[in-house]
Amino acid sequence: NQRCFQTATVRQISVETLQPSDVFAPRHNSAIGQEVQEMVNLTGFDTLDALIDATVPKAIRRGQMDLGEYTKGYTESEFIAKFKKMAEKNKVFKSYIGMGYYNTHLPPVIQRNLLENPGWYTQYTPYQAEIAQGRLESLLNFQTVVTDLTGMQISNASLLDEATAAAEAMTMCSALARGKKLTFLVSDKCHPQTIAVCQSRADGLGLKVVVGDEASFSFDKDVSGVLLQYPATDGSIHDYKALVEKAKAAKAKVCVATDLLALTQLTPPGEWGADIVIGSAQRFGVPMGYGGPHAAFLACHDEYKRLMPGRIIGVSKDAQGKPALRMAMQTREQHIRRDKATSNICTAQALLANIAAMYAVYHGPDGLDQIAKRTSGLAAILAAGAMKLGHTVGDAAFFDTVRIKVGDAAKVVAAGVAEGVNLRQLDASTITVALDETTRLEDVDQLLRILNGGSAPGFSAESLASEVDSPVGSFQRSSGYLQSPIFNLYHSEHEMLRYLKRLENRDLSLAHSMIALGSCTMKLNATSEMMPITWPELASLHPFVPADQAQGYAEMFEDLSTQLAEITGFDAVSLQPNSGASGEYAGLMTIRAYHQANGDHHRDICIIPVSAHGTNPASAIMAGMRIVPIGVDRKGNINISELKAKAEEHKDKLAALMITYPSTHGVYEEGVDEICRIVHDNGGQVYMDGANMNAQVGLTSPGHIGADVCHLNLHKTFCIPHGGGGPGMGPIGVKAHLAPFLPTHPLVPTGALPGFKGDEKSFGTMAAAPFGSSLILPISYAYISMMGSEGLTEASRRAILNANYMATRLKDSYKVLYTGDNGTCAHEFIIDLRPLKDTADIEAEDVAKRLIDYGYHAPTMSWPVAGTLMIEPTESESKAELDRFVNALIAIREEVREIEEGKADKADNVLKHSPHTADVVMAGEWTRPYSREKAAFPASWVRQAKFWPTASRVDNVHGDRHLIAKLPAASTADDTVSEPMAASVGGN
Amino acid sequence: NQRCFQTATVRQISVETLQPSDVFAPRHNSAIGQEVQEMVNLTGFDTLDALIDATVPKAIRRGQMDLGEYTKGYTESEFIAKFKKMAEKNKVFKSYIGMGYYNTHLPPVIQRNLLENPGWYTQYTPYQAEIAQGRLESLLNFQTVVTDLTGMQISNASLLDEATAAAEAMTMCSALARGKKLTFLVSDKCHPQTIAVCQSRADGLGLKVVVGDEASFSFDKDVSGVLLQYPATDGSIHDYKALVEKAKAAKAKVCVATDLLALTQLTPPGEWGADIVIGSAQRFGVPMGYGGPHAAFLACHDEYKRLMPGRIIGVSKDAQGKPALRMAMQTREQHIRRDKATSNICTAQALLANIAAMYAVYHGPDGLDQIAKRTSGLAAILAAGAMKLGHTVGDAAFFDTVRIKVGDAAKVVAAGVAEGVNLRQLDASTITVALDETTRLEDVDQLLRILNGGSAPGFSAESLASEVDSPVGSFQRSSGYLQSPIFNLYHSEHEMLRYLKRLENRDLSLAHSMIALGSCTMKLNATSEMMPITWPELASLHPFVPADQAQGYAEMFEDLSTQLAEITGFDAVSLQPNSGASGEYAGLMTIRAYHQANGDHHRDICIIPVSAHGTNPASAIMAGMRIVPIGVDRKGNINISELKAKAEEHKDKLAALMITYPSTHGVYEEGVDEICRIVHDNGGQVYMDGANMNAQVGLTSPGHIGADVCHLNLHKTFCIPHGGGGPGMGPIGVKAHLAPFLPTHPLVPTGALPGFKGDEKSFGTMAAAPFGSSLILPISYAYISMMGSEGLTEASRRAILNANYMATRLKDSYKVLYTGDNGTCAHEFIIDLRPLKDTADIEAEDVAKRLIDYGYHAPTMSWPVAGTLMIEPTESESKAELDRFVNALIAIREEVREIEEGKADKADNVLKHSPHTADVVMAGEWTRPYSREKAAFPASWVRQAKFWPTASRVDNVHGDRHLIAKLPAASTADDTVSEPMAASVGGN
Ligand SMILES: Cc1ncc(COP(=O)(O)O)c(C=O)c1O
Ligand SMILES: Cc1ncc(COP(=O)(O)O)c(C=O)c1O
Ligand SMILES: O=C([O-])O
Repeated sequence: NQRCFQTATVRQISVETLQPSDVFAPRHNSAIGQEVQEMVNLTGFDTLDALIDATVPKAIRRGQMDLGEYTKGYTESEFIAKFKKMAEKNKVFKSYIGMGYYNTHLPPVIQRNLLENPGWYTQYTPYQAEIAQGRLESLLNFQTVVTDLTGMQISNASLLDEATAAAEAMTMCSALARGKKLTFLVSDKCHPQTIAVCQSRADGLGLKVVVGDEASFSFDKDVSGVLLQYPATDGSIHDYKALVEKAKAAKAKVCVATDLLALTQLTPPGEWGADIVIGSAQRFGVPMGYGGPHAAFLACHDEYKRLMPGRIIGVSKDAQGKPALRMAMQTREQHIRRDKATSNICTAQALLANIAAMYAVYHGPDGLDQIAKRTSGLAAILAAGAMKLGHTVGDAAFFDTVRIKVGDAAKVVAAGVAEGVNLRQLDASTITVALDETTRLEDVDQLLRILNGGSAPGFSAESLASEVDSPVGSFQRSSGYLQSPIFNLYHSEHEMLRYLKRLENRDLSLAHSMIALGSCTMKLNATSEMMPITWPELASLHPFVPADQAQGYAEMFEDLSTQLAEITGFDAVSLQPNSGASGEYAGLMTIRAYHQANGDHHRDICIIPVSAHGTNPASAIMAGMRIVPIGVDRKGNINISELKAKAEEHKDKLAALMITYPSTHGVYEEGVDEICRIVHDNGGQVYMDGANMNAQVGLTSPGHIGADVCHLNLHKTFCIPHGGGGPGMGPIGVKAHLAPFLPTHPLVPTGALPGFKGDEKSFGTMAAAPFGSSLILPISYAYISMMGSEGLTEASRRAILNANYMATRLKDSYKVLYTGDNGTCAHEFIIDLRPLKDTADIEAEDVAKRLIDYGYHAPTMSWPVAGTLMIEPTESESKAELDRFVNALIAIREEVREIEEGKADKADNVLKHSPHTADVVMAGEWTRPYSREKAAFPASWVRQAKFWPTASRVDNVHGDRHLIAKLPAASTADDTVSEPMAASVGGN
Repeated sequence: NQRCFQTATVRQISVETLQPSDVFAPRHNSAIGQEVQEMVNLTGFDTLDALIDATVPKAIRRGQMDLGEYTKGYTESEFIAKFKKMAEKNKVFKSYIGMGYYNTHLPPVIQRNLLENPGWYTQYTPYQAEIAQGRLESLLNFQTVVTDLTGMQISNASLLDEATAAAEAMTMCSALARGKKLTFLVSDKCHPQTIAVCQSRADGLGLKVVVGDEASFSFDKDVSGVLLQYPATDGSIHDYKALVEKAKAAKAKVCVATDLLALTQLTPPGEWGADIVIGSAQRFGVPMGYGGPHAAFLACHDEYKRLMPGRIIGVSKDAQGKPALRMAMQTREQHIRRDKATSNICTAQALLANIAAMYAVYHGPDGLDQIAKRTSGLAAILAAGAMKLGHTVGDAAFFDTVRIKVGDAAKVVAAGVAEGVNLRQLDASTITVALDETTRLEDVDQLLRILNGGSAPGFSAESLASEVDSPVGSFQRSSGYLQSPIFNLYHSEHEMLRYLKRLENRDLSLAHSMIALGSCTMKLNATSEMMPITWPELASLHPFVPADQAQGYAEMFEDLSTQLAEITGFDAVSLQPNSGASGEYAGLMTIRAYHQANGDHHRDICIIPVSAHGTNPASAIMAGMRIVPIGVDRKGNINISELKAKAEEHKDKLAALMITYPSTHGVYEEGVDEICRIVHDNGGQVYMDGANMNAQVGLTSPGHIGADVCHLNLHKTFCIPHGGGGPGMGPIGVKAHLAPFLPTHPLVPTGALPGFKGDEKSFGTMAAAPFGSSLILPISYAYISMMGSEGLTEASRRAILNANYMATRLKDSYKVLYTGDNGTCAHEFIIDLRPLKDTADIEAEDVAKRLIDYGYHAPTMSWPVAGTLMIEPTESESKAELDRFVNALIAIREEVREIEEGKADKADNVLKHSPHTADVVMAGEWTRPYSREKAAFPASWVRQAKFWPTASRVDNVHGDRHLIAKLPAASTADDTVSEPMAASVGGN
């Protein structure tokens, strides 16, 4: 009767079948068993092993990665459970530290429908404007918030953080003086991290930063500009008008670091003479997240716009003459001005800018005013209470931060910590208390109790309300802001929800179809990776809390940096850089510091192949290097003999080589080990651009190949979603000899991880927060921890397989450029569209736009080679999806053939008119030489899941000629920019 | 210098301005200050107070609600913080209790993009098929999962829970015997809650349930059917073939309660003779949630389909002849068969059915097989280990639940609890251990340790694997399942994400525009209300854990029931009923038990107005009552003299009156207090249908008016989202004299809340879980707690204002039926479309479908009056949205006028052809007498945020004639049902 589970001689249940159901790797690496074999066969190989062996040079192959406890890979639920426990080691105290980071309420409707919504977070940078009108509108809103509140004329659509924004302002001042003025004055009332970043940045650029009391500043001829902070880091507000006069007289520019919430109450810098205004939009709904990511901004006068760093969204028109948005002056970026660049910023903080913009939309001017008034009102009450308790309160005017002389400041700070409250100690006898949106009367009572030595004072915060007035005094703002309808309509949750949804639905994201963007690795951003980032244990931490409150983060940094070190083959990691470009800069500054420590101050030559990404030369310039370009051969490989010649020529001055691997052309250069050797032999260091790391993980590694430094775009290979243009993270890995020189921070020692070993030799600080955008590091940590060693390696193999499968399927229709010795490509490949120009007058852009009609986002266009598309499928796409995309490209080739064969007109054809909006295709009269169906429904899959572009081909030139980069103040009858639903209220 | 915060004589900062920024009510009640006044004025009143006074009869107005600590209303962040602490009082142990509830992994991609996505959860029941093809496909998938796994021919699209599904099967058996056989046999191996619900239901219906060992069943002539459980509650699996033979011979039907996961391994009931198969789909990814909500199912032979309860999704075709899905045999529901009904189910569990279906899509047949094999494999290992430890293991064949004789069962259970593990005690010496998807080898080791008295045995679970075989033995299934492409394509996260998104994008939800459904109160389902339901502290609790592990829930139940009692003016509340209709049934059973306790067994007459919702008479029948209908007058009010006459006529037998207030016609009947008096005077009880509670909260209350019982549709007034047709909750409130009779539960004492006072007199059990769908109660609790007393009252006032504003704006275009004495309506109103039939041959359906072209979901159609639309805007819609909707209706009236005036054809016009798909509007040839633009872009707001229906007008009759209610097994070339993307793989 007990037959079935009795001892049997044959083993009946294998331990493998007892493995959990929520193993992650098979959900990430899309193709499944049988399909993989079919794909391999099509590429002409018998096994995937054989394809990989033919593709990745044997000389650089590595052994299995040892990821310690993560080697096997956690299941999804196990990882969440484990990491939750780790996160709970963080202690979420109430922080009044301020210094650019404030508690804020992220409105739940925005959290769920934007931050936690793949429809928003998996979007790519809006290069394809026609399928990006939603986020472009939101970013235009962001720019409007910034210009309105700062009183400036033009704003960009985000920078990485407030401190780097300050450094960018400094660079602009230098550029405006055509590099002829080397001194930049920085008020000592700026945040310490801002000062530190400016100093480090100046060091690389050869500028001189003078920090001091602005009253003592002397504006001699060498001063390009000055940086003030308004309100200051200690909370005080000062009248800078006289100073501005002095600066103007000396032709120095005035830069102001400021706070958007404060500006709802304070006369904006634009009204008292600022030239450039910077700051962070964090407190507009974005969690502190132990330092980031947050959207910084930079606003300035119109006349400086061509020197502005970062992306700018502008209004233009589409082929139908309708208003349409797009990134203005794009040539500033993808085709970045290389060694003439003044900034290397590329990935920025789009997603966070969108949150901040939506926060402003949700609250509107009245709501923001109320929040600010309450914050400052409570601050005034706190100040009054502190005075009643016998303390001296520092300032005549303040907004949210109260400076209090308390006698023994350390003691008061400690008393706060004992009560779960973090205060800032300014000096031995002074503290500051920065209030924010979340502060309640009860909190002020608690603060007063702490200030009263622990016992309740004889009065309550509420009772003081009648005794105080607004603390901003004569700085009170009189001008209005955010008058545009968009900021005055969506204040209920339903309206907000629908606005978010309408914008989302205009944009194509990974939630719709693959975005095969070469060099950008748009892979799956799995939900289980994304979930932790809205846990309060991670989201609500101030970056400058005492170390024992951030033990969860510390543990994660240790584990993640250990993982990254093993993956990259390096000895040490810095988690500070906030983007790939920032990583490049940090890596080159590390190399620079190393050379200097060796007494090699003269080593300043950086060799960069002409095929390198534009950020490479830009970063080298910022690190004070001179660029020596070298060519590439027909295969896209570095010309080794040229390299050798140049390296030897510059032997004594050689600082570094920057190289991307696999190459930006998607090929594993065979000679890469030789290349590294040549550079080392001539005294240089090898910097590897890790953008293509997705083709290396588990197969080889930068360290193994011979590089000394490498950055990792965690927002590519390691699954941080692109967020419509950011956030990203660009940590760097280095060999041991470079470890001592890695970035540090004025408030939290950082240096090399894992296992902090001091940072005395650090080159300096390059981001506002000690560990960059800490809040999104868990995404990469989750990815690595759940994939495990084998899963990660398999991802690289599948990425290569997918690319080769597509290339094989496409090669009869398009010329595939640049393959390796065995005719295979790496994880991406380039198809050449230049021949179509001659045969059919078709350009790469026409093919890119026509893909939209097929439901697809174009691959990377005209980079690294003009007139081409670079296709990177990643491992996360299924065979079915690859096939649809390939079929679309083949069908488009046939459409081109119709032109070639004279069946279609060269100017008036389905490609030139693409993409087709519903509006166009539904027009009463149809005058096109092709059918409506052909226009909009060229493939079977489109017929029932059509993604409609909301703009026809956008006119870039028109927009750049008439740059409009913010919303008009009030809607007019034919208001074309503001959101259509808004404009149509009451109409039919 | 310290000017600004010094003592001033004038009070400068008001305490009001110090209020938090995340106050909830202004985000929920949409219209803002100035707008409200404009709207009031348009209705012809000076103030909102005056409008309300003219509308709500003075006699029934109540004073301010006292909601205790919730009176003021928590802010969003305060509520989340407070409730998180409360939830953390629940202890999340590992539960092996089984009994129909199992741990499961909800795949993160489904959690985020379905359960946490307003695009899915705010959908309405798919009555408007053309804008519901997404969820209809998903529900068709659900039906396919059920029919494939059970081996039956047809399944419905969910029932409330397994126990009520069993009771519905019992009712079907009775109906199949035309009510002539009164006995129903129930195996004692069914879950105790299933037995209890069948017993209570039988009691109301006048049936007899015989519970016993099925071996002893005698099939006499009076037996309509038998209920078996496979596998049984104790885990055992039995061969029922002989029993089936006996039953068939006696013309009794065989009902089988079963488990979908087990059926992947076991020969399905459909293959051994079952007539009706029921069960729960909970373990397909749906959190246990302390009892629900979960989707139950009922599957049967095709021949019984017209007696099947609940909704069935079927395939039909649209006006273009293309396949399209819709709810089949709809007449069974909205126009429910009243006193001829055999079931009252209306709101079901659509959202949970969708989760379960998507879980099956994500894992596919192989994945499900693996999960089942692992679960049963671990169970076999546990059994083998237990035997090794000297215990006796109960059964020859089992799937996941192991029955073990352990000596002192209570001691072992206690030892488990001490280790954070819940086991089930079956009797003094026996436990059962039910394993599930989440069980790991380590868990089995822990269980073996517990079975070994706390010390590790000399062997590991893993070491036993080789000694055991599948425990299902000869029951092993041989037939295949889930062969349709849909279950075999979307196994990677990207594919799953995009499938979810494609389906979402076919459906119009509250995330797009208002859904002004009369009687259904489609208001805002705020994010902060929804967030807690995915907290593990709430989601991961088994309903039968020891009480001390559910203290958080207990506290919430106390607070919520206290709030609901105050709001309804009642003394006690039961949280057990899972829908409005369930509430009706529970309320009437409570009344019945009260009468019986008074010796009034003969009181069985229930007076119901003809205007009542169909569920009212259906519920009365289920509660063993006889229905006496009464008419309504021209104003939609109950004919009081008729009521008086009928009540007096039935004086000795009067059990109850059922009344909806405000009336189903949207009017506050002036005579309602008199109506209640008449019923009471004649010995009856007043049952109030609380569907229209949104017009009462804070203004009056059922208790205040004079009712004795009332149900609350928490999924209407109290913000539980409709989920595309469920889940819902229908708790009931009662006066003190009825409290002792409220529902109880065999495993967890329930009875009246707040403050449990015994349940000896309870009428019985009416749901599987003690507190119904506990997991969604926090939504209503959050709503009430954040709105506070004033916010809730203001919601009612705004709901009334919005309805009157719309009615006023519409009254020149349409006749508004049924207004109160002062010409106002309540929170909803009816417009009459019958005249258009004569003048233009236009029916209500034409207007409803044409609204889709304008981007709107139709209001309630032809209920309670045929040929009308009933419009309920709710308080959550802004004036702008109300205006757009009104403008759409006015524009449609003008389109009708074109027909009336002969400018448009009666048959070939824009209304008759509505809705217009992109396909239709883009057709090469356009033969319609109106323009493409008029078809698709009739209003300005549609032009830039168009919602495209994916089907033309769906043919209901065709579908009902050729009922197809599941996917075909394999795709064919022109496979029309399966998802289009799937079908097109590899094609162009
Ligand atoms: C090869 C390469 N290097 C550097 C970068 C810059 O990275 P980030 O955008 O993160 O600054 C990119 C970005 O696309 C890149 O493709
Ligand atoms: C007046 C009325 N009563 C009862 C019900 C039934 O409620 P439920 O669908 O929750 O069972 C409804 C549902 O629409 C209703 O409108
Ligand atoms: O589904 C409803 O009928 O509310």
